[in-house]
Amino acid sequence: MSGCIFCRIVAGDAPATKIHEDDTLLAFLDIRPITRGHTLIIPKGHATDLDELSPALGARLFGFGHRLSKAMRRSDLGIHGANLLINDGKAAFQTVHHVHLHVVPRTNGDMFTLAKGFLLRRPHDQEATAAALRSGLDRLAAEEKETNA
Amino acid sequence: MSGCIFCRIVAGDAPATKIHEDDTLLAFLDIRPITRGHTLIIPKGHATDLDELSPALGARLFGFGHRLSKAMRRSDLGIHGANLLINDGKAAFQTVHHVHLHVVPRTNGDMFTLAKGFLLRRPHDQEATAAALRSGLDRLAAEEKETNA
Repeated sequence: MSGCIFCRIVAGDAPATKIHEDDTLLAFLDIRPITRGHTLIIPKGHATDLDELSPALGARLFGFGHRLSKAMRRSDLGIHGANLLINDGKAAFQTVHHVHLHVVPRTNGDMFTLAKGFLLRRPHDQEATAAALRSGLDRLAAEEKETNA
Repeated sequence: MSGCIFCRIVAGDAPATKIHEDDTLLAFLDIRPITRGHTLIIPKGHATDLDELSPALGARLFGFGHRLSKAMRRSDLGIHGANLLINDGKAAFQTVHHVHLHVVPRTNGDMFTLAKGFLLRRPHDQEATAAALRSGLDRLAAEEKETNA
């Protein structure tokens, strides 16, 4: 799918600030974030919508979203919650036709930021934001290791 | 969690129009639907938010949401897509503090219905809607059986 912007990001032909990458998934910052840290998680292989995505890959996609929402609370971004959202199909406002899970960090009393974010949707400091989210993932992994020790 | 409305639904102490039930999950119609067929999927065991939900149960929860979004397209409700949404935490507008995945069916050009739905959020014909969604699940299962035959 050479015309697909997300496939181009996967192939390294378009830039993205990456949060996580493994054999089947890629997570990167939305270039028009609703709030700081707004991340998109995609399957690396092209799937237009949930109808085309295998259940196994769907589980991995959501699994990382679940993990990221826990990691966000452990980052230094002052995050208290998140909205996890898939717009599946044109009728549901899907604009890039490669399945993606939005993870939108939320902060207590961020209504104003959110409203502003919907209007402006402009990048914050992408590198610092990505680094903060990655440390959240590291802290979560350390916590899990301790629990299992 | 006797004070939790979703735990009361699971226990059979509060009414709900059920779409699906298995050993770990329950899916039922939202009593204040944004669009017709708006379904909530919950883990039967109480988990306040994603931080409290096990990864395995999260995968099952989303797995059924994925399946339901495919089933909706195969129902007789004229559905073309869906929004899948988890509001995780008070900061993210979570109002019932028992994890739930919203699956909101969408129809091409339903903007007006949607806007109206946000204002009114009143039940449509619950039983007929639930029956239509269940036939979508049946059709999906039949399709899968045919593919595997």
